[in-house]
Amino acid sequence: MAEILTENFSVNILNGSRRALAKAMSLVESSRESDFFKSQELLLKILPKTGNSLRIGITGSPGVGKSTLIEEFGLHLIEQGKRVAVLAIDPSSRRSGGSILGDKVRMPRLAREHNAFIRPSPSGGALGGVARKTRECMLLCEAAGFDVIIVETVGVGQSETEVSSMVDLFMVLLLPNAGDEIQGIKRGIMELADLVVITKSDGEYVSKAEEARRRFKSALRLMLAKHNGWRPKVLTTSAVEAKGINDLWTACWEFYESGERQKFLKEQRRHQTMEWLHQILEHELLRTFYGDERVVRILPDFEKKVFEQKMLPARAAHELLKAFQNLQ
Amino acid sequence: MAEILTENFSVNILNGSRRALAKAMSLVESSRESDFFKSQELLLKILPKTGNSLRIGITGSPGVGKSTLIEEFGLHLIEQGKRVAVLAIDPSSRRSGGSILGDKVRMPRLAREHNAFIRPSPSGGALGGVARKTRECMLLCEAAGFDVIIVETVGVGQSETEVSSMVDLFMVLLLPNAGDEIQGIKRGIMELADLVVITKSDGEYVSKAEEARRRFKSALRLMLAKHNGWRPKVLTTSAVEAKGINDLWTACWEFYESGERQKFLKEQRRHQTMEWLHQILEHELLRTFYGDERVVRILPDFEKKVFEQKMLPARAAHELLKAFQNLQ
Repeated sequence: MAEILTENFSVNILNGSRRALAKAMSLVESSRESDFFKSQELLLKILPKTGNSLRIGITGSPGVGKSTLIEEFGLHLIEQGKRVAVLAIDPSSRRSGGSILGDKVRMPRLAREHNAFIRPSPSGGALGGVARKTRECMLLCEAAGFDVIIVETVGVGQSETEVSSMVDLFMVLLLPNAGDEIQGIKRGIMELADLVVITKSDGEYVSKAEEARRRFKSALRLMLAKHNGWRPKVLTTSAVEAKGINDLWTACWEFYESGERQKFLKEQRRHQTMEWLHQILEHELLRTFYGDERVVRILPDFEKKVFEQKMLPARAAHELLKAFQNLQ
Repeated sequence: MAEILTENFSVNILNGSRRALAKAMSLVESSRESDFFKSQELLLKILPKTGNSLRIGITGSPGVGKSTLIEEFGLHLIEQGKRVAVLAIDPSSRRSGGSILGDKVRMPRLAREHNAFIRPSPSGGALGGVARKTRECMLLCEAAGFDVIIVETVGVGQSETEVSSMVDLFMVLLLPNAGDEIQGIKRGIMELADLVVITKSDGEYVSKAEEARRRFKSALRLMLAKHNGWRPKVLTTSAVEAKGINDLWTACWEFYESGERQKFLKEQRRHQTMEWLHQILEHELLRTFYGDERVVRILPDFEKKVFEQKMLPARAAHELLKAFQNLQ
């Protein structure tokens, strides 16, 4: 990957070369140490050209129709002259070994568009690692001139919180099943939502979807406002009938305009960047600690002592930290 | 607190002196560094006498009737000749400044019993700190000869997970409102439950409670088994009519016997101890890092660079860690 470090390479990304973009993402996703420094150098070069997209996070349980909606939404944006990138975080893929997200086969029409870029989820690595890599891929897409970046996640694990901490607008997709209010979406996630989208509002489900819309709208009123100047909206859509997609984009745009006017978007990005720094910092600190050769050497012995009730965990922690800091 | 370090003091705890127990808990809950070492020394002395209680975690939303149930349950255990300690974790108390849990006034009859010990939640400190202190208080109660330790928490925040990681048996309390299946209990918490208790099954609510019991029973069947050899039970109780309390204790005892027979209790405790060590370790590592004078000195500058997009978070983290490790 020597070409990565040439000036041309970053210029190619800025010029919108899909090949350069894909290659840069592979570098960012690599877990080799030497690639880390290369990727940081590359990212630093493109950093001034980032920040100019609308970053949208989309979450929803499996079966809610995420792929279908994202495809219709993406195609609509492209019709409006936008360039759209879709990135996916799939925490389950690390466990199962296979990815249920990020497959281009899921969005065949969007994948064929020249102004769309779909990236399968990075596999392997720690959660913090996946999130870091998704953020950095987002920056690469911005440098490559994409106007809307969609970060997609399944509504399980803690990935929703991570996604909401890297996007401007967070969208929660729900089925038109008003009775079962949570539908596998963790409590707390609804409070992160800027837009709630009731999917599959077609055929016999139209009235159910409308009922769900009203219920969620009143439920959201009870929640603390996430942003001063934006009240979360609830919309109904049908991807198969291509209904509500235009309204969805209008709502996104209204959110963006409110955010600019009320200045909450800028403030949110500032906050997110600081949070990001501290997340990486803490993740790396733990990695350094557990990888330290003194720690590796003595940890099993302390674990044994704690296990055999010869030492208390707090004392063992104290001693291990002393060893790590080389104070003993 | 010089007397703490005398041999007599730990003997007094082992002999069941309530005064010595309360004093030891204050020491454990203290955030003074010198008290930390004293408390660790004390705990080490009593450690061989710990581990002989049944540790029960109880969670439920405010209003579910936790205090009333715990009081009836505790009184029933005392009638059976047991000694009962109740410890409370209240994450909200740190925010509001006042404690909504742990107040002896909530359980006036139990508080009067000689064989009961009720401890208000430790206030202040980080979450890891509160959990550590609750664990250590649990050990002190065991050394003081309590047979059943109840660790109580409100069903908000992440305290349920922490409580479930320090007890043998985790109990979730729910209202007899079959329609609203989650009742403010976070998803994922149900999967931690060994026993589910439908409270307030009295008067007009008896049939509702029975309906809820059946629904939860079938819902729990769909979940992954937490222990090999124990299928979570769902019971209905009425604290005001003192109904179902004996069955509740029978179910706890059945759980305990299964756990001994199938050996999952011992395995769980082993796992919990290791988890505990690592939690403290990571908590203290972060505290050390952010308190390090080199870090304190240079962190603001790196934050500024990251904020102004002159440096990437991953690079800043790298530099900060190098400084912390004194490698530059």
